[in-house]
Amino acid sequence: MRTSKLLIATLKETPADAEIVSHQLMLRAGLIRRLASGLYTWLPLGLRVLRKAEAIVREEMNQAGAQEVLMPSVQPAELWQESQRWEKYGPELLRITDRHQRDFCYGPTHEEVITDLVRQEIRSYKQLPVNFYQIQTKFRDEIRPRFGLMRAREFLMKDAYSFHVDQACLQKTYDQMHAAYCAIFNRIGVDFRPVQADTGSIGGNASHEFHVLASSGEDAIAFSTGSDYAANVELATAIKSDAVRAEPSADLATVSTPGKHSIEAVSDFLQVPAKQCVKTLLVEGTEENPVVALVLRGDHELNAIKAEKHPLVASPLTFATPEQVHAACGAQIGSVGPVGLHIPVIVDHAAAQLADFVCGANMDDHHFTGVNWLRDLPLPDSADIRNVVAGDPSPDGQGTLEIARGIEVGHIFQLGENYSKKMNAVVLTETGQSKIMTMGCYGIGVSRIVAAAIEQHHDEQGIIWPQAIAPFEVVLIPVNAHKSQRVRDQAETLYQELVDAGVDVVIDDRGLRPGVAFADWELIGIPHQLVLGERGLDNGVIEYKQRATGEKQDIAIAELVTTLTGQLR
Amino acid sequence: MRTSKLLIATLKETPADAEIVSHQLMLRAGLIRRLASGLYTWLPLGLRVLRKAEAIVREEMNQAGAQEVLMPSVQPAELWQESQRWEKYGPELLRITDRHQRDFCYGPTHEEVITDLVRQEIRSYKQLPVNFYQIQTKFRDEIRPRFGLMRAREFLMKDAYSFHVDQACLQKTYDQMHAAYCAIFNRIGVDFRPVQADTGSIGGNASHEFHVLASSGEDAIAFSTGSDYAANVELATAIKSDAVRAEPSADLATVSTPGKHSIEAVSDFLQVPAKQCVKTLLVEGTEENPVVALVLRGDHELNAIKAEKHPLVASPLTFATPEQVHAACGAQIGSVGPVGLHIPVIVDHAAAQLADFVCGANMDDHHFTGVNWLRDLPLPDSADIRNVVAGDPSPDGQGTLEIARGIEVGHIFQLGENYSKKMNAVVLTETGQSKIMTMGCYGIGVSRIVAAAIEQHHDEQGIIWPQAIAPFEVVLIPVNAHKSQRVRDQAETLYQELVDAGVDVVIDDRGLRPGVAFADWELIGIPHQLVLGERGLDNGVIEYKQRATGEKQDIAIAELVTTLTGQLR
Repeated sequence: MRTSKLLIATLKETPADAEIVSHQLMLRAGLIRRLASGLYTWLPLGLRVLRKAEAIVREEMNQAGAQEVLMPSVQPAELWQESQRWEKYGPELLRITDRHQRDFCYGPTHEEVITDLVRQEIRSYKQLPVNFYQIQTKFRDEIRPRFGLMRAREFLMKDAYSFHVDQACLQKTYDQMHAAYCAIFNRIGVDFRPVQADTGSIGGNASHEFHVLASSGEDAIAFSTGSDYAANVELATAIKSDAVRAEPSADLATVSTPGKHSIEAVSDFLQVPAKQCVKTLLVEGTEENPVVALVLRGDHELNAIKAEKHPLVASPLTFATPEQVHAACGAQIGSVGPVGLHIPVIVDHAAAQLADFVCGANMDDHHFTGVNWLRDLPLPDSADIRNVVAGDPSPDGQGTLEIARGIEVGHIFQLGENYSKKMNAVVLTETGQSKIMTMGCYGIGVSRIVAAAIEQHHDEQGIIWPQAIAPFEVVLIPVNAHKSQRVRDQAETLYQELVDAGVDVVIDDRGLRPGVAFADWELIGIPHQLVLGERGLDNGVIEYKQRATGEKQDIAIAELVTTLTGQLR
Repeated sequence: MRTSKLLIATLKETPADAEIVSHQLMLRAGLIRRLASGLYTWLPLGLRVLRKAEAIVREEMNQAGAQEVLMPSVQPAELWQESQRWEKYGPELLRITDRHQRDFCYGPTHEEVITDLVRQEIRSYKQLPVNFYQIQTKFRDEIRPRFGLMRAREFLMKDAYSFHVDQACLQKTYDQMHAAYCAIFNRIGVDFRPVQADTGSIGGNASHEFHVLASSGEDAIAFSTGSDYAANVELATAIKSDAVRAEPSADLATVSTPGKHSIEAVSDFLQVPAKQCVKTLLVEGTEENPVVALVLRGDHELNAIKAEKHPLVASPLTFATPEQVHAACGAQIGSVGPVGLHIPVIVDHAAAQLADFVCGANMDDHHFTGVNWLRDLPLPDSADIRNVVAGDPSPDGQGTLEIARGIEVGHIFQLGENYSKKMNAVVLTETGQSKIMTMGCYGIGVSRIVAAAIEQHHDEQGIIWPQAIAPFEVVLIPVNAHKSQRVRDQAETLYQELVDAGVDVVIDDRGLRPGVAFADWELIGIPHQLVLGERGLDNGVIEYKQRATGEKQDIAIAELVTTLTGQLR
């Protein structure tokens, strides 16, 4: 490719409305342009990246035995009514009325359409399992589209749906998809983690998210330093320590803490570390016990998802009102503690390990110090109700946990019979019985991968593409070619040799000043850069620069193709 | 590929709602399934065809120097308001309101979006010409979607838009696109004609449609037997003959023709061929002459597009009311003729050549016979106001015209400044002046090509794919493999050898009865079929059958790969 036949639309200034690095760099490098809120045009350079990512996804899906289909993007409301999502989905579903006043939507996902197809085409258990996928434009009417392609309204997605006669068969395909996803993200060249995820309201059996690690990620994930264990922080287990609790060494005392209503304020005021304090949160419970207390170490955060799974706690988790708090403990929020309470107390495993701790005294502006379980108050069975923190032991017993930010680029999910039951998608079994199919679904945000790769791979100068998805693998920059026939001729010869050798190369024939051209290619982030000038020619060499490391070396022109193709493969 | 990992969803019965052959066969061969009116899912076999057509289009567009981009499918109303199409486009434009009550549409075409992009990114004449294309899902809310993919609502389109500093530059790209389109349709393997088309209401300078010839085509096209000339019948020129008109040989006579008001009835009644009669149609004219007469040979059809371009005729063409007719000639419609009329008479070239002809006598239920121009009535300058018919001389003077039905699969168009002027898309010229860009646009209905190829290539048994877009080039059918380990082993060996040789082959490992399997592959239309059975194995041969011709031959198994790859390339 020649830049004279390619729109290079780099920008010097960072667009004001681009908040995160990938969005800024995609605009600056001329990969995308904004059409309207959450709607982007892929320019030629950007589309090359997207297509390369798409091709890798397609190859690995085919390799894993999935079959590609293409479903309409516009879907009839009737199917969504059948699955009961037409009302539930909310305003993110872009609803459309056609000229005959019939209701449709622009599909954000295709469970209904594929289930409708499969219930018509698949009749026998012998035809199972099947796994259909498509790579298609989706629409989600985000209330506040932002971060460019990271949270766009229109985006490119790979979505796959598998159908099975039973859970064992689903598990097998699920495992294959897990492996295929690892292969995809490895080939693309991003540092990622498959993490256990919450199955949430869909109520399936198992779910993994695939996160590209990047400090700008919206999700916190916990992973072990000593094993493959990784989970969304929402889901990561904080295990109960085997350590023996320290013996009491201090006497229980009441101290005045005027105006100190937060852990931080109390800890500061009493000169006691936060982890030696407990916080006591009153939340709604069951009919029998309408209010219950949750007790956590002061430096730990409540995990609502874990707490609301506790049988004594109402779901969704709802904090008690100030009136309820006062009625239960005789004090205001900020002075509550577990001592002497007549409501159920649920203690986090870590808080249950404390000795000589500080807590609210259930008397306004007073706290207890030197509190000890069993001596000063009963110790109920402890539970896991907090977010894990860095340094916690890994729940699989191997290594400790670290916390990182991640960008979710993939999600695999065991749906079970969630859709197939509502839509009556059945097959005949070996014994001639009608059986509801078991389903899995598997998504990858293809356009999001591009943005995530940039979040993970960039520096001050611009993007540093993983080779597999770079717009071009190699850029050839002739320096001051307009002044030198020799440079022009040699550049053309080398360009042609590289093309003939199958190298994905672009030649910069724009004739810009060298500094401007170099800055463009650093910004665009081509992994391998070749600079050809008069001085090099005198010595029969071309300058090679690796974008990622900035390392330069001279390569003999005669050996360039061999050396470079060796480096690329 | 193995059929055991591929959804083969053939149907025995022709679905009732499928009117044309391609729609019937695409359903029966399991290429597509209907989701809702005008919305179809591409099944795995069908998608392979679509992707092959898409790949050919992409390669040839890249080859012709066009740059691929991808614009959003959802477009903001503001741009369409700027081009004044938001109101004009009518209900085929699928209008959408988002959650913030802003207006959008699902793009049926992208002139506005690309013009908006280009006016922002392209500033100088030095950056021109550019030609951007995309291959994308479009939506047109047809009032009556039908014929399957031929007139679907959601469809895959390649649309390209070029920008230029002047007409000469546009013409060059237009010619390149013309050549690229010929290359595309040739590679796909369809018999097609590029035909001159009406530029219609868009008012551009030049336009060609690309038609796949098929008897079911919606358009009539005229093409020369002796040259490349081809045009939509609406536009094909009927040239004025150089022949000398015959001398009068009959006297003018008035005959009674009671109740005979059509050419057919008069011709039958008087035993005179229709081509020896003329029909006289009164239509609205200009302010000066509110009614004018059009005179055509009885066997010719009026061409409204040509007639309304005549300076004396109102546009759009409007027939005179019975009252106007009676006022102008004193008779009812059906008895009108050009003799003695006091309104302007426009005579078609062919009608002007007649001698001794029949026409209405301007007296109810009477006709004249033996009418002759100049002797019985004045002969005004003749004009071309009829549709050409088979046998007419080609307007380029080479050969005669034939008429065929065509399916429009491509359209190229010189838009001129139509959009760029309204949207103020300008560049700076060499002299620093601001100049409105000149545009071209170039569309191909990718999904429509698939249907059109079937309309052109099928027989009683099913589809006969052109090799380039066949779902697979070769099918290998082991016969009764479940009964014969020898057949199974040999089939697997051959399959692997073909795969290794890069042949696009599918093996039928479904274990169906041979007749059922054969019928499936005839229906699906794989160009090259290999049948392996016990009997052939005894002789060391495999049966080869060409789908198109039905010809069979035995090929030595040892030479299969060599023979077949030779045949394929």
